[in-house]
Amino acid sequence: RINSDRLWDSIMEMAKIGPGIAGGNNRQTVTDEDGEGRHLFKRWCDAAGLEMGVDEMGTMFARREGTDPSLPPVYVGSHLDTQPTGGKYDGVLGVLGGLEIVRSLNDLGIKTKHPIVVTNWTNEEGARFAPAMMASGVFAGVLDQADVYGHTDKNGKKFGEELERIGWKGTEKVGDRKIHAFFELHIEQGPILEDEDIDIGVVTHGQGLKWLQVTLTGKEAHTGSTPMPKRRNAGLGMARVIELVHEIAMDYQPDAVGAVGHMEAYPNSRNIIAGRTVFTIDIRSPEKEVLDAMDARVREGIDTICEALDIQYKVEQVGHFDPVTFDAGCVKAIRDAADRLGYTHRNIVSGAGHDACWINRVAPTAMVMCPCVDGLSHNEAEEITKEWAGAGADVLFHAVVETAVI
Amino acid sequence: RINSDRLWDSIMEMAKIGPGIAGGNNRQTVTDEDGEGRHLFKRWCDAAGLEMGVDEMGTMFARREGTDPSLPPVYVGSHLDTQPTGGKYDGVLGVLGGLEIVRSLNDLGIKTKHPIVVTNWTNEEGARFAPAMMASGVFAGVLDQADVYGHTDKNGKKFGEELERIGWKGTEKVGDRKIHAFFELHIEQGPILEDEDIDIGVVTHGQGLKWLQVTLTGKEAHTGSTPMPKRRNAGLGMARVIELVHEIAMDYQPDAVGAVGHMEAYPNSRNIIAGRTVFTIDIRSPEKEVLDAMDARVREGIDTICEALDIQYKVEQVGHFDPVTFDAGCVKAIRDAADRLGYTHRNIVSGAGHDACWINRVAPTAMVMCPCVDGLSHNEAEEITKEWAGAGADVLFHAVVETAVI
Ligand SMILES: NC(=O)NCCC(=O)O
Ligand SMILES: NC(=O)NCCC(=O)O
Repeated sequence: RINSDRLWDSIMEMAKIGPGIAGGNNRQTVTDEDGEGRHLFKRWCDAAGLEMGVDEMGTMFARREGTDPSLPPVYVGSHLDTQPTGGKYDGVLGVLGGLEIVRSLNDLGIKTKHPIVVTNWTNEEGARFAPAMMASGVFAGVLDQADVYGHTDKNGKKFGEELERIGWKGTEKVGDRKIHAFFELHIEQGPILEDEDIDIGVVTHGQGLKWLQVTLTGKEAHTGSTPMPKRRNAGLGMARVIELVHEIAMDYQPDAVGAVGHMEAYPNSRNIIAGRTVFTIDIRSPEKEVLDAMDARVREGIDTICEALDIQYKVEQVGHFDPVTFDAGCVKAIRDAADRLGYTHRNIVSGAGHDACWINRVAPTAMVMCPCVDGLSHNEAEEITKEWAGAGADVLFHAVVETAVI
Repeated sequence: RINSDRLWDSIMEMAKIGPGIAGGNNRQTVTDEDGEGRHLFKRWCDAAGLEMGVDEMGTMFARREGTDPSLPPVYVGSHLDTQPTGGKYDGVLGVLGGLEIVRSLNDLGIKTKHPIVVTNWTNEEGARFAPAMMASGVFAGVLDQADVYGHTDKNGKKFGEELERIGWKGTEKVGDRKIHAFFELHIEQGPILEDEDIDIGVVTHGQGLKWLQVTLTGKEAHTGSTPMPKRRNAGLGMARVIELVHEIAMDYQPDAVGAVGHMEAYPNSRNIIAGRTVFTIDIRSPEKEVLDAMDARVREGIDTICEALDIQYKVEQVGHFDPVTFDAGCVKAIRDAADRLGYTHRNIVSGAGHDACWINRVAPTAMVMCPCVDGLSHNEAEEITKEWAGAGADVLFHAVVETAVI
C-alpha cells in the first residue's frame, strides 16, 4: 500500500500555490502560479530520483527507469492546473498519486521492468484557454500545436507566448513517446460513489462533449428611448439560448447534460441594450447519437431565436470529443486491483473530460475514480478525505505495477 | 440666430478627447479623459469671459454676468461624460449649445438682466458609477453626497476618490445655488422626430425609471459531471429574469420599456455552472402606476424563478426617478421660440433620464430636443446633422434669452 499521509501532505503543500479566495485554488494554466507549482513538482521528482522531460506543450514527464529501459513506459498522471475558482484535488490527486507510487516503489526497493513516467499534462481545464485537455489533445494528434499556440485568453494573451513566458516550453517534440499504458486517478466530480458509499469507481467510459462558442450581434441602443419593437437585443437572445440549452438537456437527461457557464455582454452598461453577446454552450452525453442530436437542435434553435429578434449569429465549435470506451485490459487491471485490495467498487462513466480520454486514442488507457463530497467540483469547496485519496492511489499503485511488471 | 458652424466645430473638437473605437467616444465620468474634456471646456469658457465655479460633486458652472447680478441666473447645460461606447452628441450638444448661446450674446453685444450659467453636470450617464444623473440628483437633494462618494465602479474604485484624483472636486457646497430657470438641449435618442420630419421636440414630460440590481446565488459546479436535477444554476436564473423583464415590458408597451444591459456571471468559466450572477434591470414608463406595477411583477417573478431553481436572490434599487412633468412656463418659452423661428415642432416625452429631470424638482425647467439619425443613441454610431443641432441651439438661445430678459 502507498503512504496516504505523505500523499495528503503533498496535496496540501501544492494547494499553498495559487490559493483561491475560499479555501480552494486559482492556479490557471501557464500563469506564474502554474509555473511555481511545476517547480515544486519538479523538486519532488528530483528528490525521488526521476528524470524530467518537458515537451513543446509544456507537459512534464518524470521517468523512473525500468529494468529493461528499451520497453515502453507505463504512464501515470493527470494535471496540476486548476479552474479560476477550483478545488485542491481536481487533477492534483492524479499527478501526486503518480508521484506517491514512485515514492512507494523507492521505499520498497521494487524495480519494474517497464519504466514508469509520472505526467503533468498542460492546460487540462480549458478555463483560461479553450479547449480543455489541450496538451494531451496535441499529444494524441487531435489538436494542432501551431493552432493552439495562437489561442487567446480574455485579455488577448496567446497560449504559446504565455507558456514561453513562464519558462516551461520544453524542446521535446509532442507525441513522440511510446506509451505501454496510461492510468489516471481522478476525483469523481459527481455524486454517485459517495451516494452509494463505494470506495472506487472503475471508469469504463467517458462522456462526449461539444463546446459551441456563440456570438450574437444585435444593435447597441438606449434602454430608455428605444421603442420595444425597434430593439435588436443580443442580451435577450443570449437569455433565450441559455434556456434552450437547458430545455434540450432536460429532454435527454439522465443521458445528457447542458449549460452555459461562460457569458459576456457588450458594452455591458445598465442603460445600453447589448449590441453583442459572446457565450459558450457546453453539451455532453455518453451517447454519440445523443450528442449529435443535441448539437443539431441547439443550432436550429439559435437560428429560430435570432430570426425572431432580428439578430445575427455565429457558432464556432471550440471544443469537442466523442464519447470514449476505455481499454478493456487496463480497466480489468483496475478492477482486479480493487478486488485484491478489498475495496468496494463499481463501473462508472466519467461525466467530465480527462487527459485519459485523449491518450486512450493512442495507447491502452483507463481511469480510477474516488468519491468527492457532495459530488462537488469546479468549486473551491471541493473536498475529499485522506482515506478516499489513499484507496484510489492504492488501486492505481497496483494497476500500474502489475502493468509495468516486477 | 446662433453660429451653427462654430457650435459644430466645438462638438468635433470635444469628440477628439476620449475617442471610441468606432467613431464615437469613451469619455466616462471622472476618468482622465473626462478631466481633459473639462479642461477644454474651461478654456473655452475663459475665452468667452465666463467665471467658473466648481462644486463638491465636480459640476462646472460658467457664469456670464447679468446687468442685475443680484437676480438668480438662468442655467443652461447638460453633461460632457459619455457611455463606454457612446456618441459625440449625447450631453455634449447641451453643454456646448449653452456655450454657443453665450458666444452669440458676446458677438451681438447683448446683455441680459439675469446672469446666465452654462453647466456641465458630473456623471449623467451612470455607466461607470450608478445611478445616472448623479450630480444633479445630489444638487436637487434627492441623492446623498456622502453616499454616492462611496459608490464603486467594476474595479472597486470609489466615485469620490476618482473625482478627487482627476482634480475636479470643487469646494462649493452642492445645491446652494438659486436657479431662476434651467434649460437643457439634448438629442432625442429615439426615432419620433426624424420619422415625422420635425425640427424640434418640445419636451413636456420625462419617463420614470427604476434600476434594480439583482444578485442570484446558486452553486458553482462542474458542467459535465453534475446531474441536471442537482444543479443550482445562477446563469439559468439570470436568463429567465432577462426574459421576464422583456415579457413584462411587452405587456405594457408602448407605455413602457424594459431590458437588462448589464450582466456578469461568476466565475464565468466554460465548464463551471455559474454560482453567482449580478445584473441590472432597467424598467421605465411615463406613468407612475405602470412603473410601480412593473416593479411589483418583476420582483414577484424573480421570487418564482428562484424558488424553482433553488437559488437565492437579492434585489437592490440602484437608480430611481418618478415620471416628470416639466414647468409649463419654461415649456411655453421653448414652444414660442420654435414658433417664432419658424421651426416645425411637436410635444414629446423624453424616454431617457436627464439632469433636467432632477433640476425640475428645485427650479422651473424644460428641455428642447433635436432629432438623431435612426433614433440611435448609446452607440458610437449616434449621428445628427449640423442643421438639426443649429435649430435646437437657436430655440434654446431664444428661450434662454427671453427668460433672462434683455
Ligand atoms: N476533469 C475536468 O474537470 N476536466 C475539465 C474538462 C471538462 O470540462 O470536462
Ligand atoms: N440621456 C441619457 O442617456 N441619460 C442617461 C440616463 C438614462 O439611462 O436615461
